[in-house]
Amino acid sequence: MKKLDKITPQNQDFAKWYVDVVKNGNLIDYGLVKGTIMFKPNGYGIWENIQSILDNIFKKNGVSNVYLPMLIPQSQFAKEKNHIQGFNPELATITKVGNKPLYEDIYIRPTSEVIFAELFKRDIDKNNELPLIFNQWTNVIRWEKTTTPFLRNSEFLWQEGHTVHADPLEARKLTRKMLFIYEKFLKDYLAIPSIAGKKTPREKFAGACSTYTIEVMTKNGRALQCATSHYLAQNFSKPYDIKFKNKENQFEYVYQTSWGTSTRLIGAIIMNHGDDRGIVIPPYVAKNQIDILTIFGNKNPQVIQKAKQLYNQLSSKFRVRLDDSDKQPGFKSSQSEIEGTPIRIEIGPKDLENETITVVRRDTLEKSIVNFNEINATFFNKLMEKINKNLYNKAAERLNKKFVCVNTYNEFKEKIAQGYFVSAPFDGDEIIEEQIQNETGASARCVKIKQKIHNLKPCIITGNYTKKRVIFAKSY
Amino acid sequence: MKKLDKITPQNQDFAKWYVDVVKNGNLIDYGLVKGTIMFKPNGYGIWENIQSILDNIFKKNGVSNVYLPMLIPQSQFAKEKNHIQGFNPELATITKVGNKPLYEDIYIRPTSEVIFAELFKRDIDKNNELPLIFNQWTNVIRWEKTTTPFLRNSEFLWQEGHTVHADPLEARKLTRKMLFIYEKFLKDYLAIPSIAGKKTPREKFAGACSTYTIEVMTKNGRALQCATSHYLAQNFSKPYDIKFKNKENQFEYVYQTSWGTSTRLIGAIIMNHGDDRGIVIPPYVAKNQIDILTIFGNKNPQVIQKAKQLYNQLSSKFRVRLDDSDKQPGFKSSQSEIEGTPIRIEIGPKDLENETITVVRRDTLEKSIVNFNEINATFFNKLMEKINKNLYNKAAERLNKKFVCVNTYNEFKEKIAQGYFVSAPFDGDEIIEEQIQNETGASARCVKIKQKIHNLKPCIITGNYTKKRVIFAKSY
Repeated sequence: MKKLDKITPQNQDFAKWYVDVVKNGNLIDYGLVKGTIMFKPNGYGIWENIQSILDNIFKKNGVSNVYLPMLIPQSQFAKEKNHIQGFNPELATITKVGNKPLYEDIYIRPTSEVIFAELFKRDIDKNNELPLIFNQWTNVIRWEKTTTPFLRNSEFLWQEGHTVHADPLEARKLTRKMLFIYEKFLKDYLAIPSIAGKKTPREKFAGACSTYTIEVMTKNGRALQCATSHYLAQNFSKPYDIKFKNKENQFEYVYQTSWGTSTRLIGAIIMNHGDDRGIVIPPYVAKNQIDILTIFGNKNPQVIQKAKQLYNQLSSKFRVRLDDSDKQPGFKSSQSEIEGTPIRIEIGPKDLENETITVVRRDTLEKSIVNFNEINATFFNKLMEKINKNLYNKAAERLNKKFVCVNTYNEFKEKIAQGYFVSAPFDGDEIIEEQIQNETGASARCVKIKQKIHNLKPCIITGNYTKKRVIFAKSY
Repeated sequence: MKKLDKITPQNQDFAKWYVDVVKNGNLIDYGLVKGTIMFKPNGYGIWENIQSILDNIFKKNGVSNVYLPMLIPQSQFAKEKNHIQGFNPELATITKVGNKPLYEDIYIRPTSEVIFAELFKRDIDKNNELPLIFNQWTNVIRWEKTTTPFLRNSEFLWQEGHTVHADPLEARKLTRKMLFIYEKFLKDYLAIPSIAGKKTPREKFAGACSTYTIEVMTKNGRALQCATSHYLAQNFSKPYDIKFKNKENQFEYVYQTSWGTSTRLIGAIIMNHGDDRGIVIPPYVAKNQIDILTIFGNKNPQVIQKAKQLYNQLSSKFRVRLDDSDKQPGFKSSQSEIEGTPIRIEIGPKDLENETITVVRRDTLEKSIVNFNEINATFFNKLMEKINKNLYNKAAERLNKKFVCVNTYNEFKEKIAQGYFVSAPFDGDEIIEEQIQNETGASARCVKIKQKIHNLKPCIITGNYTKKRVIFAKSY
């Protein structure tokens, strides 16, 4: 049980707990350049599963994958003024090759709007065929001052979708459609409830007309932005001169969107489901869905044999790991727990005698004895469905409990200090938002999309009557 | 047929033909930084399929995926002297972020031996568990002076496997096992015959003890190195201090391998199978395996309906594209040919009358009339198998015809000038190899692994008797 001792309890210090479980769960190690991480098999495996499920969903929705260069000449990047202003302090810049200086500085992509602009321009000039609905899975670099594994890293992995349309309404619709794809994906596959909303102007993407977001609540009551979808309008098509011929045979600038999610989702999983024993990975994205552990197998070759037979039976349907080593049973099971494997099977001499196995759920730690003849794909499929549902329900209950509507700034401050998501009538501008953040630490997360229509209430700061309610929270 | 006119015939100018078909086939467009390319859906789709098949094979062979940072501090890179010397002129170097200079220059990975070294060191120090068999799918940067799409680009996509072992023999075995995995993959899925061999010391990887290679012959008789597998011995473990505790409880440096293949494979496909009508993609990796084209569908809604029904029937089993637009039938079929789709189905009013479709093979351009009731998955599976076999056989025949054994330098020069792969008795050193290359343009490609034992013959240059035969060719 040595490993378990290393984990700081969540209640004692959540930030320290997080780093403890990430490292002990064998997800990552730190890179050699500050703020970078090495994804080890346990961590990268989660991303591979996220990628494969989400990619499949995208393709069913008409998305084609491309891959564009990560190198962007300074002059190309500088054409959209808000965009370069927003990203400039974080841009890793190549100035030489070997010992030879370059003619022009080259940036590593922090996002690829400006290079997609070039592809779109050439394609549309040639074919005039719209819409184009592209996506790429890549690494990007944003040089961050303070970093946390998965949540904020200098280099991270993500997908970025980019689309062009002849019709602004079609583009706006797609922006929201992608947002709801993310929301459903988080629910169905990561067991994470979220709030789909629109960002305030202060919080929107540098260069966007409007930004939509998926906000998640971590176990310590903070907001984590997990995916965004931007309606870019003609903000990029004008400076980058992307025009199509419309039905009236006139040239018109195209309408664009972009949308993305990243390895931050792994952080969201850990901060939603993890406990004091380690991380808890939802079954559909876990690198190992089932761990088979032998108990005192070294004294009983029949135990090893049965474990191997089980492994062969299950591994054609599920991602299974077999640990038939001589390590202590307690060590093996705590290793499985700390790594968050959703289901573990223990099999020892006693089980063999009774023709049973012990099945342990990681989410509830509930043990059950299962007869050999009950072991089949249906059993484990049902169990995984149960686990996913339970994880979701627990997280949704927490989000519900920690979500509150207030009508005064005093209440607002009190609830923010207690770690709530606070919904408040608000019509303030960017400067007022900044004041609130300075005073309370909370930022405007979003205006919820699907909500009942609110009555006119006075804004908690300006006092002007407004129907708009903005959700505020402390965030990562 | 407008598009077809743009393709330069292979016999006239192979290099120009290549660029013509790559661009007309909608595979790529050029990036904004010299030597980079944008992978469009048709080009990236091939890489996605290569990746998914090869990744599956790797996983069945015990390989786990990881992802390591692309940023490598200068000081870490410089520890292995041959490695830094070999790569230095091609290293893209980050010297500042925004406007702030960095404390130390940072390289973008041209390959990741030195960052894997760090991961391995920490892992083994902690667990002393060997072997570790890791792989990553990434982008890398090597700043090349002259570039050709897919064959040589400043940024390219690849996979790089990295392993550590306690036993040098086990490491050597794995080096060769991976080589044969590549050889078989090229044959089974890309329909490309190849020569598996060992590089001469002059041609081996900067930092390797020995390098194995998969050499492919293009239609113009040049060699293309398509995959490599390196036995690194302790060349990295010593400068990077990667030690394990052996059975005698002594610290010992680990033994390592690395192996990789890249988007160059797409170039190999085009240069092996393409013809004057465009590219020809082997069915198992084609983005679209079947194109369904309506012929004069706009005059006959039943044609459209039947085409859609076919699309629905086939797209659950195959990657199918439906073009039911009003474009000219000739334009649609030449578009399908130029993009290299292995099978195309044409359906028009006459077909409908006869309850048939027209099936056209891209490799032979052979047309056949197929009854509605003969259309099923088995039919197309068999056809794809046939196409793959035919493409392989044609390429293998060419490789055979253009492969010659010589015994004198005069014969050697003659055959090299005629575009042959030339096998010659050779025991010369790196300086002699360089002389040969200066005089004939040919470089030593490899010493074939699986070959009959040769008689002692005098080396074509030194005259010393040797059993070793080295294959030379002009190469990309």
